[in-house]
Amino acid sequence: MRGDLERLSRRLGHTFGDQRLLEAALTHRSAGSANNERLEFLGDAVLSFVISAELYERFSKANEGTLSRLRAALVKGETLARLAITLDLGEHLRLGPGELKSGGFRRESILADGLEALIGAVYLDAGIAAARTRILSLFEEELQNVSPSEVLKDPKTRLQELLQSRHEPLPGYSVLSVEGDAHEQTFVVGCRISGLDMLVKGTGGSRRKAEQAAAKAALEQLENG
Amino acid sequence: MRGDLERLSRRLGHTFGDQRLLEAALTHRSAGSANNERLEFLGDAVLSFVISAELYERFSKANEGTLSRLRAALVKGETLARLAITLDLGEHLRLGPGELKSGGFRRESILADGLEALIGAVYLDAGIAAARTRILSLFEEELQNVSPSEVLKDPKTRLQELLQSRHEPLPGYSVLSVEGDAHEQTFVVGCRISGLDMLVKGTGGSRRKAEQAAAKAALEQLENG
Repeated sequence: MRGDLERLSRRLGHTFGDQRLLEAALTHRSAGSANNERLEFLGDAVLSFVISAELYERFSKANEGTLSRLRAALVKGETLARLAITLDLGEHLRLGPGELKSGGFRRESILADGLEALIGAVYLDAGIAAARTRILSLFEEELQNVSPSEVLKDPKTRLQELLQSRHEPLPGYSVLSVEGDAHEQTFVVGCRISGLDMLVKGTGGSRRKAEQAAAKAALEQLENG
Repeated sequence: MRGDLERLSRRLGHTFGDQRLLEAALTHRSAGSANNERLEFLGDAVLSFVISAELYERFSKANEGTLSRLRAALVKGETLARLAITLDLGEHLRLGPGELKSGGFRRESILADGLEALIGAVYLDAGIAAARTRILSLFEEELQNVSPSEVLKDPKTRLQELLQSRHEPLPGYSVLSVEGDAHEQTFVVGCRISGLDMLVKGTGGSRRKAEQAAAKAALEQLENG
């Protein structure tokens, strides 16, 4: 085993039986065709399952919406990238020449995907119980710090989550009209929910506020309808 | 055990150790506070994990995008509702008085959610291996019939999936201008990707076509960028 991979295995708490899985998990798509994209798909599902089951157990009073928001808060790219950094994952990823120079958001996304791929690889190497143990160990602090009261969300996000939970298409927003002088404009935005044949309007002093108002009105119609 | 529940257990192939889990899985939110929403949250994650792992194994050449589309084709509400009907799930669901009269899409969604809740209940009752066996048995025909060549998707869907896989916000579309006579209009639509600070334009003879053109252009920029 490459010496640096031994260090990564130690940090992760898992020694791979099949080294090729670890190598594949660490290969970004920019570095070749035997890359980590398929493992990322798998790891994403493993992670979501393990975190969902854990949240279900820990928050026995939380309803579905709160559980979904807790999960979204835990498995978002930013958190995954931060956890990837605790493993020094960036040092071990194989990237194509173009990607080596990229920074910021792009880099965060590569780290998050790499961590998901690594989780997928642990699952294939040793099964769901081993993957679960590694995930809960990685997310220990996150799980302790996340709380239902902190994940209350804005109407647009809640509308999106409600529609996803009902297997309906996502909403579309469009500005229907803008009135008033430049410094005192009123936006009217339509929120279109195609699966439900709905168009709901919202008004506000900015496009963003009008969108939130439209989403709020749509939520109310959906929850009472 | 209620006689009808025994029939359901037989169809499902799982006899519950904890009957309360089965009762909860069959209780729609319209019928009380001890309903199936939390179990649905859990079952959705269990289902997604089991199907993802199965697709990963069966389609060893499929890339991440194809695997995501195959999964979306298998776990969509319409399919879940159809499988729920094979279990006669509708006969066993406890619904509030208002819901009993509802039909069509609403009913399909209640059945799909009920099946996910049932899967969550099996998982809690007997563990992931038991849930996996039940899921693969339920989805056996679907898994045999689904094929990568059938899940090629339109640019808007592919753009949405690409952004989701990169943990980036979803795109927004808006009509920038409409020109020409009523029977020969040209739409210009902007596709906004806020996380990436992009606005890409597309043109077409209808709003829908212009949106697809904008999504296609955005996909090209993202995939080459």
